[in-house]
Amino acid sequence: MSSLVPAFIIEKKRDGIELNAEEIKSFIQGITSGAIPDYQATAFLMAVYFKGMTLNETVAFTRAMLESGDRFDLSSVPGVKIDKHSTGGVGDKVSLILAPLAVACGLKVPMMAGRGLGHSGGTIDKLEAIPGFNTALSTDEFINVLKTVGTAIIGQTTRIAPADKKLYALRDVTATVPCVPLIVGSILSKKLAEGTEGLILDVKVGNGAFMQNKGQARILAKTLVQVAKKLGLNCRAVLSQMDQPLGCAVGNTLEVLESIAILKNEWPFDNACTDLRELTIHLCAQMLEMGRIVKKHADGRKLAIQKLQDGSAWNVFKEMIAAQGGDVRTIEDPSLLPLSKNIVEWKATKKGYIKSIDTKGIGELLIEMGGGRKVAGEKINFGTGMIFYKKVGSPVAPKDVMVKAYLPEGISSAEADAFHKRFMQSLQFSATRHGAPKLILDAGVK
Amino acid sequence: MSSLVPAFIIEKKRDGIELNAEEIKSFIQGITSGAIPDYQATAFLMAVYFKGMTLNETVAFTRAMLESGDRFDLSSVPGVKIDKHSTGGVGDKVSLILAPLAVACGLKVPMMAGRGLGHSGGTIDKLEAIPGFNTALSTDEFINVLKTVGTAIIGQTTRIAPADKKLYALRDVTATVPCVPLIVGSILSKKLAEGTEGLILDVKVGNGAFMQNKGQARILAKTLVQVAKKLGLNCRAVLSQMDQPLGCAVGNTLEVLESIAILKNEWPFDNACTDLRELTIHLCAQMLEMGRIVKKHADGRKLAIQKLQDGSAWNVFKEMIAAQGGDVRTIEDPSLLPLSKNIVEWKATKKGYIKSIDTKGIGELLIEMGGGRKVAGEKINFGTGMIFYKKVGSPVAPKDVMVKAYLPEGISSAEADAFHKRFMQSLQFSATRHGAPKLILDAGVK
Repeated sequence: MSSLVPAFIIEKKRDGIELNAEEIKSFIQGITSGAIPDYQATAFLMAVYFKGMTLNETVAFTRAMLESGDRFDLSSVPGVKIDKHSTGGVGDKVSLILAPLAVACGLKVPMMAGRGLGHSGGTIDKLEAIPGFNTALSTDEFINVLKTVGTAIIGQTTRIAPADKKLYALRDVTATVPCVPLIVGSILSKKLAEGTEGLILDVKVGNGAFMQNKGQARILAKTLVQVAKKLGLNCRAVLSQMDQPLGCAVGNTLEVLESIAILKNEWPFDNACTDLRELTIHLCAQMLEMGRIVKKHADGRKLAIQKLQDGSAWNVFKEMIAAQGGDVRTIEDPSLLPLSKNIVEWKATKKGYIKSIDTKGIGELLIEMGGGRKVAGEKINFGTGMIFYKKVGSPVAPKDVMVKAYLPEGISSAEADAFHKRFMQSLQFSATRHGAPKLILDAGVK
Repeated sequence: MSSLVPAFIIEKKRDGIELNAEEIKSFIQGITSGAIPDYQATAFLMAVYFKGMTLNETVAFTRAMLESGDRFDLSSVPGVKIDKHSTGGVGDKVSLILAPLAVACGLKVPMMAGRGLGHSGGTIDKLEAIPGFNTALSTDEFINVLKTVGTAIIGQTTRIAPADKKLYALRDVTATVPCVPLIVGSILSKKLAEGTEGLILDVKVGNGAFMQNKGQARILAKTLVQVAKKLGLNCRAVLSQMDQPLGCAVGNTLEVLESIAILKNEWPFDNACTDLRELTIHLCAQMLEMGRIVKKHADGRKLAIQKLQDGSAWNVFKEMIAAQGGDVRTIEDPSLLPLSKNIVEWKATKKGYIKSIDTKGIGELLIEMGGGRKVAGEKINFGTGMIFYKKVGSPVAPKDVMVKAYLPEGISSAEADAFHKRFMQSLQFSATRHGAPKLILDAGVK
């Protein structure tokens, strides 16, 4: 039996024998062309779930996924191209701020981003809350915006890593999402295809992340960095905490509003929450160091803070919105953005401290409110969401507003009560003070 | 998330958590109706490969597969109904002899049998070498033949265990065939559907069986017996050796000819080979004991031998052939059966003993000769095959005929040489005598 027969490749993986690059390439090509049916693909995925992949296999797998589609040639774009990728969480709108900020600091940021996935939100969905904003640029348009603005944020096109697109959809319904080599291949094939030279990875850890504990997250981070380097992509990873929503806003328009506030150097929603701004500055400094704009991390931080303060990051953001067809009036006057008018306040009922937030539960609650998808392709209600005024470690007293909720318009009071009940179930309180969780758990996994 | 969501059931199995009967039933129903796509079925199968199933799960799985289709009601057929099932090997034509023999001894034998699978042959293919023989009887015809003849041998219909049919085809191409709970569910769902009251299992062990070692085979046998009993089917298993072809003939018409000779109490092909007759008598005695036709195994043996000697088993065989549409003239005058005229003798070249036969290789060689299928649905050349005059332990001297080969007609001498070469590669010789392998390794796994 030839070693390229699909059933034989599955059997070899099942038995834990290392596959060679030719076998992996042939299997991925078969998936892309349709010659290998989905039912063989998923048996393979489950075998990989149990048996893993060696570093060499993961490199071959990632390369095969990359080569299943087009790869952007950004040689005509001058400057150093560095991108950032987050493994996903709740309230993570870093990319909206970071891409223009890094450009204001001197980098180019070609960014291919994703939609909401499971309980986690997606950069593409958030940007689409801005009327007119087009995340489906052609290759020429993408390169043009990169040249003129310095950054462009687009969704995955059908011509980029089609094997990943197919495998991702299958993983989602066959319990094979949380598997390091599969995650690595999925992330890096797209990042390699977008044409970036360097990549800062924000690997999330916690009850709102796909990796719940630090050990798993570190393995993922290390594998991502090793595989990226083997494939010629300069890469470094940060482990950051996802045991509560990042920043204060959860929901598409609300997250755009929060991003705009940070870009304008304002406090979003008169809120004392600083983690979003801090993480964005940290990741920006990492990108600047990698792109040799600065020599030291501290210099990168300074430069980033300066570009937030002097309005240049905000200007790049507006240019990007305009260049990608977005209605700039709506971000200059955010009252024009789609936002629910059905606003309620969810208050504390007793004195104490917030001990924990079920962050995945909050992500799922947003989906229930229409702010995410239950099935692929569903239309999103951009205007719903939550603003958190209290986070983990915050003291609360009766009648303190913990969250301002933007519920779907036109729902019954019973439905509103159900949302409130579900929210309250996601919180744990304690009588004694707990510190806020540490934001950055590891500043540099190499 | 409801526990009946397919992805959740896959996840639970992936994590080694026992599934309850409702979850298993819902999954199998989804597979049968098509509501659950093949790509979820195969991910589940691979997860079962790695995590196994508990006894309760295997019982629920088997019951769900049984209930996915029809079940014959044999209450109108008088007498005790006992069937035999073999897990498959090379040269295993026991059913052709055993079914009429057991009827001659006083039992009823409702038998749903299979086609060739992988390197192993199938009872249905062998019977179809007899011109006109119909293995696709309707339910009424099946019951009628059972009433009039006492035995009928049919193939699996589309209405029997359709879930098994679907899963089997998927397992075959996703490296999930060798997995005890899946094998158990597949075998028993069909045996329960055919309406038998008792079942003797012939679990094969050796280089021509799906289970290569005795430990694996014993686990399979024990699980089969336990699950059958939980589902109300009286069951007992025999472990028998498959380290060489059973009997002397391999190939469809040749195996019919060997069966006819045994049924007529003759030596097939003037051959000293006794294992086929011995195993058939042993299994018949087990069936007679289970069906309480006799009290002791030894009495069963005596009765079986008597029914071979007095011609009554042969008469039942002829009646069955006639009742199922077969041309009885061809078995009364076997020269009318399809048999290749391209006969060559493969001889020994030196003095010694046959140390081993690669039995799986012999099965694959028959497929190469056209005597089995490379892809599903292929037409079989009934007339090709091999008669073994020497088996493991046999002394050989130069020019001794080891095998008489019935090659496809019209092939080139180069092709004939290639068959000869492949045959010789399947043999190992030694200078010193080795005993013949023991035929029955365990006479009763309960």
